[in-house]
Amino acid sequence: MERCRLVFSGSGGQGVITAAVVLAEAAVLYENLIAVQSQAYGPAARGGATRSDVIISDSDINYPKVIQPNVLVCLTQEAYNNFYPIIRPGGLLITDNRYVKIQRKVDAQQKELPMHHTVMEKIGKSIVFNICMLGVVISLTALVKSESIMKVLENRIPSSSLEMNRKALNLGVKLAEDVKS
Amino acid sequence: MERCRLVFSGSGGQGVITAAVVLAEAAVLYENLIAVQSQAYGPAARGGATRSDVIISDSDINYPKVIQPNVLVCLTQEAYNNFYPIIRPGGLLITDNRYVKIQRKVDAQQKELPMHHTVMEKIGKSIVFNICMLGVVISLTALVKSESIMKVLENRIPSSSLEMNRKALNLGVKLAEDVKS
Repeated sequence: MERCRLVFSGSGGQGVITAAVVLAEAAVLYENLIAVQSQAYGPAARGGATRSDVIISDSDINYPKVIQPNVLVCLTQEAYNNFYPIIRPGGLLITDNRYVKIQRKVDAQQKELPMHHTVMEKIGKSIVFNICMLGVVISLTALVKSESIMKVLENRIPSSSLEMNRKALNLGVKLAEDVKS
Repeated sequence: MERCRLVFSGSGGQGVITAAVVLAEAAVLYENLIAVQSQAYGPAARGGATRSDVIISDSDINYPKVIQPNVLVCLTQEAYNNFYPIIRPGGLLITDNRYVKIQRKVDAQQKELPMHHTVMEKIGKSIVFNICMLGVVISLTALVKSESIMKVLENRIPSSSLEMNRKALNLGVKLAEDVKS
């Protein structure tokens, strides 16, 4: 496989760190891959834009920080404004179309998706916005299977919340399928 | 301040990643510091020993991975067996005295503390074991204040769980005070 470098960005409370940890665990525990997951906090974090990095590979990863992601997710305008310049040419830029207005062309596939709207309409709880986003990411990248994400969630969250998370993940997968080019 | 490199290790489900994220956020959001937090997962993670790294500093951090921690926490025997050799000479090694039997002398201050026992006796829920451990760490290192940890928790967990977390944090601070040399 090609090494995949992902950056999930948004505001505190949108669960981008959790999404990154879940993706990394799914890759390692259930897909026999190697992963590194990190957060670098600095003055930008105090301003409100949180960023969480994941590198997934089938061989050793020496440098754990993502310089140029081939997958960049931006869940807020501020996150987009801060991070769109770092995307790797030819990469994939995923934004929530309610929170982010794309302002510039970048050399990337841009996917503007109604993730938050769909989660609120179909589930009504913004807490699973991040899991819907993960569904989009795994569908567009084919990095890990849905079942691997669900196995991680089974170990991390109360069983009473599992069904809602499964629904959110599937909503994301479906949104992505609709825009696959 | 001196740069502090920490490694929290244990088994999946003990919350060492959450503890690391909470500590990093407390340092950045409420203590005006810079932090990097990461997980590197490889074959060892599949074996059961989870490791989570934090670097806290008042100046830029270029390399986010911890090579030699000056603070190493081991919550299981397997984590101890895997990671005790990496501690920085003169560092601080914190273990849970129920789960870990110290087998060798290392050039470090060794603190064997009844964290799990105390949490179970006073609170009865192992889910806050990791927060008690954080209380020990912040008390022995003076890295961040208890109030900063609590502010992060207030943003992350339901208010119904806050009091239990505060109690666990304080139990950890108290355990550490009893062994300060």
